[in-house]
Amino acid sequence: MTTTTHSGGDGAGIVRRTVLPGGLRVVTESMPAVRSVAVGMWVGIGSRDEAPEHMGASHFLEHLLFKGTPTRDALEISAAIEGIGGEINAFTAKEYTCYYARVLDEDLRVAIDVLADVVTSSLITPEDVEAERGVILEEIAMHDDDPSDVVHEQFSAELYGDTPVGRPILGTVESINAVSRDRIAEYYRRYYLPTHTVVSVAGNVDHDRVVALVAAAYERAGALGGDARPVSPRVSGPGVDVRSGVRVLHRPTEQANLVLGMTGLTRTDERRFALGVFNAAFGGGMSSRLFQEIREKRGLAYSAYSYTSAYADTGQFGVYVGCLPSKIDDVLKICHEEIHRVIAEGITEEEIVRGKGQMRGGLVLGLEDTGSRMSRIGKGELVFDEQLSVDEVLARIEAVTPEEIAAVTRDVLGRPLTLAVIGPYEDRDFGWALNL
Amino acid sequence: MTTTTHSGGDGAGIVRRTVLPGGLRVVTESMPAVRSVAVGMWVGIGSRDEAPEHMGASHFLEHLLFKGTPTRDALEISAAIEGIGGEINAFTAKEYTCYYARVLDEDLRVAIDVLADVVTSSLITPEDVEAERGVILEEIAMHDDDPSDVVHEQFSAELYGDTPVGRPILGTVESINAVSRDRIAEYYRRYYLPTHTVVSVAGNVDHDRVVALVAAAYERAGALGGDARPVSPRVSGPGVDVRSGVRVLHRPTEQANLVLGMTGLTRTDERRFALGVFNAAFGGGMSSRLFQEIREKRGLAYSAYSYTSAYADTGQFGVYVGCLPSKIDDVLKICHEEIHRVIAEGITEEEIVRGKGQMRGGLVLGLEDTGSRMSRIGKGELVFDEQLSVDEVLARIEAVTPEEIAAVTRDVLGRPLTLAVIGPYEDRDFGWALNL
Repeated sequence: MTTTTHSGGDGAGIVRRTVLPGGLRVVTESMPAVRSVAVGMWVGIGSRDEAPEHMGASHFLEHLLFKGTPTRDALEISAAIEGIGGEINAFTAKEYTCYYARVLDEDLRVAIDVLADVVTSSLITPEDVEAERGVILEEIAMHDDDPSDVVHEQFSAELYGDTPVGRPILGTVESINAVSRDRIAEYYRRYYLPTHTVVSVAGNVDHDRVVALVAAAYERAGALGGDARPVSPRVSGPGVDVRSGVRVLHRPTEQANLVLGMTGLTRTDERRFALGVFNAAFGGGMSSRLFQEIREKRGLAYSAYSYTSAYADTGQFGVYVGCLPSKIDDVLKICHEEIHRVIAEGITEEEIVRGKGQMRGGLVLGLEDTGSRMSRIGKGELVFDEQLSVDEVLARIEAVTPEEIAAVTRDVLGRPLTLAVIGPYEDRDFGWALNL
Repeated sequence: MTTTTHSGGDGAGIVRRTVLPGGLRVVTESMPAVRSVAVGMWVGIGSRDEAPEHMGASHFLEHLLFKGTPTRDALEISAAIEGIGGEINAFTAKEYTCYYARVLDEDLRVAIDVLADVVTSSLITPEDVEAERGVILEEIAMHDDDPSDVVHEQFSAELYGDTPVGRPILGTVESINAVSRDRIAEYYRRYYLPTHTVVSVAGNVDHDRVVALVAAAYERAGALGGDARPVSPRVSGPGVDVRSGVRVLHRPTEQANLVLGMTGLTRTDERRFALGVFNAAFGGGMSSRLFQEIREKRGLAYSAYSYTSAYADTGQFGVYVGCLPSKIDDVLKICHEEIHRVIAEGITEEEIVRGKGQMRGGLVLGLEDTGSRMSRIGKGELVFDEQLSVDEVLARIEAVTPEEIAAVTRDVLGRPLTLAVIGPYEDRDFGWALNL
């Protein structure tokens, strides 16, 4: 059992880390001024670890973990947390899955016990699999009714093709109907191991007490012990096959939804801070170029923004706009103009100052929330070799130079474009939009 | 100038209130442990104050306030807050409109100055009105593409008919195209007065400093002075004409969306704490009856919950479910069974304990966020004659008896039912669903 400590900085607490026998990692951040505590259990497995024929299994499994263990049925799991006024939930991403709860600090033990129970001891009964299959199909249908959600998935599918990172996290109606109970249970046994798990806790807590509670809960489940070491952060994945193309999905919606973008930076790319400052100025808020050009000046959209996302070995930079179907040509032309302009001319000194202020303030303001801090340290432990303190992140943002921003803008925004569109377009060709 | 103080209780700060000359109210709550501050400016005017021919004007006006003042254009308004890492936004409800910002405590003055500027000194130029008309039409289209949003609006429209409280907050394409610049400007001059406004601030702040900053900002705008007194909370409104009926909107969605409900309690009804405990147990979380019956046991939906909402002189109690179109009959039958069962048998002692825990914990956990506290005191000052402290609210929840819950359940859930459905139903009649 090893414990290390990062010193806390301005406004940030002290982060401590312990590795328990068997390779289970526990990270905590103390926030003595709050009364709540957020507990997360992060498993380094997500939809990109699935074979095509069991697409959606990671997310299906996430649902099944709330259905029952030898000591708690579904009602007892949710009632244990909700009855004390807390919340419990989970989400599945492409590279990890997170189970979390937020409760009053005096209820820390309950949150740890319930989460450890579901993560280590899920029954995954055939009856629960069948009932939950219906729920997943409902979730897929709900998702399909949200065009702003679907367009991002279509963009990933076009950019990455039919590869693990390009496929939908929820799976498809076909894959969910096809996947068997045994396949999901096998996936659970194979990957939900202490070596693949990080427990992160932020709030009014003491590190040693958290470690003791987690160790006791895992011990009861027979999941502690041995000399296995934590798995290293994922550095690559199978089949990232980047393409450039156009995907148009016909839907009788009131608005067209589009994502225009390209590959971005990997999660550990040192240039990510420079791209972050650029993104804030380009499409990160109401004062950004995209918002000003598309919405403030011309009233062409309600929602218009740019974003970055990052995985172990690839990333995305994209622009999202929702607009009336008749406005899409104008919107696409503006997006192109703005992309070409920043490649050629960069952004202004004033925009850089504002972009840095936006990133800095967003980080500091986000730190008042136990859930945000729990996520930062939990995800950080799982996906980074070395976790940066808040002060280090702030210093990296501050250190970004205009030259670095110009260089990363030229590199990333100069990459081949991909476009996804959803809207009432029976057979319109948007190929022109890649070659303006 | 009068100042009053509510003592703070367990986990809650001290609430102070000052009325400035001209009737402007300032309420603050100190949270010395945080670094951020949330500032809200609440105007007691919303969509139910509109005449039918300018439906949507309150929300249109809310947008226009971000377009410019004599000293700041749209970019300067957003850049002033975003450049220091803060956020600024607004929302329009049926009975009030709120403009808010969240910034670091050292930037309190900036937040107050910018918000006071837009609330008191908006230019509302004809050019801005025309550009923003396009944005509002985009927002209406975006909203129309979200069936879970539309179904709630359809439910209100069916329950209240074509009355101010039954009409959509955004207005319609027709009303937005028709409303004139002068009409909106007149609405602004008439209602955006210090007497109708509450400034609420929560975070690491000193009450006297907040009052001085607000007074200075309003003084600069020439909006301070005189002996006008704050308007009283709204106690009634025109034309609440409650009906019972069925409204079906045909949409080619993947899921059907439904709201089944009835009128609830007014905002000041003493029975609201009892109804709140009931609602938590009936449909307020994953451990609730509705969630357990519809989702856990039968896998018929992803999202299923009940809710209460309250206005000055009416309220709603409703059940929302999204399900595959083929499942709607089963879902409606379960909703009816559960409604009839709780009217006849009430809820169990165990559910009451859990419901109280859920309300209590949700309140306390929510209080760590400056935005939640700002909302609680700002809205509270605007709509209640007397503001309850957090301790008083907790005591009211604790004091609720099983008999009170049974009585309010029988009263509210026994009222005539109204149903709104959106889904791929060309001409199905759901009249049967009101008479099971």
